[in-house]
Amino acid sequence: MNLPAAFVDQLREIFPADALALDAATRAAYGYDNSRREALPDAVVFPPAHDEVVALVAACKHHRVPLVARGRGTNTTGATVPIAGGVVASFERMNRILRIEPGDRLAVVEPGVLNADLQSALAGHDLFWPPDPSSAPYCTIGGNLACNAGGPRAVKYGASRDNILGLRAVAGNGTAFRSGTYTTKGATGYDLTRILVGSEGTLALVTEATLKLTPKPTAARTLRAAYTDMQHAADAVARIMAQPVTPCALEFMDAAALGLVRQQGADAPATAGALLLIEVDGEPDSLDAAQAAIEHAARGDGLVELRSARDAAEAATLWAARKALSPALRTISEDKINEDVVVPVSRIPMLVKRLRELADEFRIPIVTFGHAGNGNLHVNLLPRNPEERTRAEQALPLVFKRVIELDGTLSGEHGIGIAKRDFMPEALGPGALAMMRELKDLFDPAHILNPGKLLPDLA
Amino acid sequence: MNLPAAFVDQLREIFPADALALDAATRAAYGYDNSRREALPDAVVFPPAHDEVVALVAACKHHRVPLVARGRGTNTTGATVPIAGGVVASFERMNRILRIEPGDRLAVVEPGVLNADLQSALAGHDLFWPPDPSSAPYCTIGGNLACNAGGPRAVKYGASRDNILGLRAVAGNGTAFRSGTYTTKGATGYDLTRILVGSEGTLALVTEATLKLTPKPTAARTLRAAYTDMQHAADAVARIMAQPVTPCALEFMDAAALGLVRQQGADAPATAGALLLIEVDGEPDSLDAAQAAIEHAARGDGLVELRSARDAAEAATLWAARKALSPALRTISEDKINEDVVVPVSRIPMLVKRLRELADEFRIPIVTFGHAGNGNLHVNLLPRNPEERTRAEQALPLVFKRVIELDGTLSGEHGIGIAKRDFMPEALGPGALAMMRELKDLFDPAHILNPGKLLPDLA
Repeated sequence: MNLPAAFVDQLREIFPADALALDAATRAAYGYDNSRREALPDAVVFPPAHDEVVALVAACKHHRVPLVARGRGTNTTGATVPIAGGVVASFERMNRILRIEPGDRLAVVEPGVLNADLQSALAGHDLFWPPDPSSAPYCTIGGNLACNAGGPRAVKYGASRDNILGLRAVAGNGTAFRSGTYTTKGATGYDLTRILVGSEGTLALVTEATLKLTPKPTAARTLRAAYTDMQHAADAVARIMAQPVTPCALEFMDAAALGLVRQQGADAPATAGALLLIEVDGEPDSLDAAQAAIEHAARGDGLVELRSARDAAEAATLWAARKALSPALRTISEDKINEDVVVPVSRIPMLVKRLRELADEFRIPIVTFGHAGNGNLHVNLLPRNPEERTRAEQALPLVFKRVIELDGTLSGEHGIGIAKRDFMPEALGPGALAMMRELKDLFDPAHILNPGKLLPDLA
Repeated sequence: MNLPAAFVDQLREIFPADALALDAATRAAYGYDNSRREALPDAVVFPPAHDEVVALVAACKHHRVPLVARGRGTNTTGATVPIAGGVVASFERMNRILRIEPGDRLAVVEPGVLNADLQSALAGHDLFWPPDPSSAPYCTIGGNLACNAGGPRAVKYGASRDNILGLRAVAGNGTAFRSGTYTTKGATGYDLTRILVGSEGTLALVTEATLKLTPKPTAARTLRAAYTDMQHAADAVARIMAQPVTPCALEFMDAAALGLVRQQGADAPATAGALLLIEVDGEPDSLDAAQAAIEHAARGDGLVELRSARDAAEAATLWAARKALSPALRTISEDKINEDVVVPVSRIPMLVKRLRELADEFRIPIVTFGHAGNGNLHVNLLPRNPEERTRAEQALPLVFKRVIELDGTLSGEHGIGIAKRDFMPEALGPGALAMMRELKDLFDPAHILNPGKLLPDLA
């Protein structure tokens, strides 16, 4: 689109010259994300504070200009690609940690703070903020909240929505508000906070977040359990989650993922067809008992090997290999389709079985790993040529269909963006879809915020 | 109001004769709650299942008849009193536990299931649902969700909103929908689930809930720590919450509450002016370390005595005395004003100081106890005659004012109902209040659901 001249004048009034970019090079730099999609915005702004965001939303609303909030573009669904043009608001300059209150277990931050920078600041207080996506070193808290980011630790500590106390935000209708509390309990009206978490910038722009912090356990142990095949590994996951000691990570890799891990320098028994990477944390005195409980649950049919990492270095190698899995898949397929479906833990074996059938039927490599303790599997369809790409795209709806049949959901932590929005009607049903459309109309009646994301276009 | 004849005909079509009551005695029995307020509904219905709720909402919407959902009326804010007349829908017959899936840590229940009945059913699976209000034996899951109920265990395990996965519901606009997931992770669209939790029946009627379950720790220990005064006890609370071992209960009693506890048969050191009741839970092998960590944090200035309950019987006596506190206050004042304000834990001492000032200034007894680990204090103003009642009502806004100054909120677990709705504008600010009013209009455009609750009337 071409921005109206009066709108550009307003942007110049709101933002100093160094916080407004209209040149092609800057616009191109803010038009992509980790979905490898891209589109050119008409302007990029760098809000310095809440008041400028209020003025920006008012201007965009008045002139009906699309407005896309952006952290660092690490999401994988196209959620920050400005497909309708308009303005990208990069929150990279709103990156201050406003306060940390250790006794109240909370931190107040601007949305552009990097996840890893927050964790560093909290380490001195023996606290952490649980969401830990693989992109933690370079993703923002605002982006984490927008996508309800999780990561391995979510099995014990929850995802972003479980670790938020309150927000300051500007809705697409222009209303600025504070929601939630500075306390861990609250029953004072409707929960405006959590409706924004996971809304992918389609309802409001967050300008401040009050995060719930957790005391950092002082010790942890890493175990690995190798099984003959995925079915037996999945059975062990269900046993582990049915006993009282909840691991702080319970990661799963299938045979193909295991092959990639071996390439990354981690050894694994030759007869292993699936691997669990398990971490328990707590105070030092409690770990022997916790490890024993996990080991007891991990033992069963198909177990090839069960042992703890010999030392911190080996644990680090195991984790590095796990975290490198996602980028490593690009060595098989430049064009990977990475889904993060979720099913109830007891149904992982049924999903895994169906994925194997689909890999055979459509003759495409499928590599599966992920956060098994939550039932959150990263299903990677890996086409190596255009024919395989076509077949992978045919297989994908059948993956989602089976997930929904198994009482699962489309996304555990990546979100919907552009990538999955057309599958939303089937996943939600007509009632929930209608209510979500009405919520969108309420918060953003002019549909200026991140248009074309999360919900499918009206037929 | 007088119900339109056509509407009554519709009710007779929807409900069999034994599920519809129009007689005065039944109507009177369903017109009160634990706030000691009452009002007469024009009809009472007992929905047997989801479909009847859909038809009921449609009929009420068409005829503009108020509709008040009711669990067992244990709330303290007037939230289930039908102040505008109309229909009370008692969910007491929708009391089936539909399924329990131990491996997936979830239960699917109808809203009329009693909290204690669910816990009994879960005990055989070594699981529990964390919310544990004092009324657990006779309050319903639906009511717990409507009020975002908490209880002592919320300090470690969260309140109702933290322990819900999904809902089936009928909004006031007539739309029936399912929200949320059967999984512990989900990033598939807007969070319709949590917006209903704590909405006190003003947005939708819940017909089914999928609850997140937690493995039941196999062991627990109860400690009590007595301090010379409230200030020192509050300092200890902040120290306990700033270290890694989170207690599963951290209850606080001031000197007046302690006097009542002594009357209930629990002993306490004569020099104690405040008491903490602390519980830690976990696996047996971990409890020595957990207890040591808590004891270390509990020690400090003003400590009079610190010891663990000698045996299960003593622990039970301590807990029974704590749980009996709320009803015991009626022995001082038939007309108690029981608030459940929350402040950040570090600010409990400041709130406590102000409460003492107000008790002196307004010459009324104030007894304070509650869930200190969450900063959730039950502040009881206890007028003994009409003059004291008048002064208590003058003091109350000053309690709320100080709470808000201290970054606190009006309610931690009781909710707003009629009792606190006039304080909402000050607590929320104009932006959040405007957004909540719009949410009400969206979900319930005819304002048939529980009218006059949660939000103040428009000026």
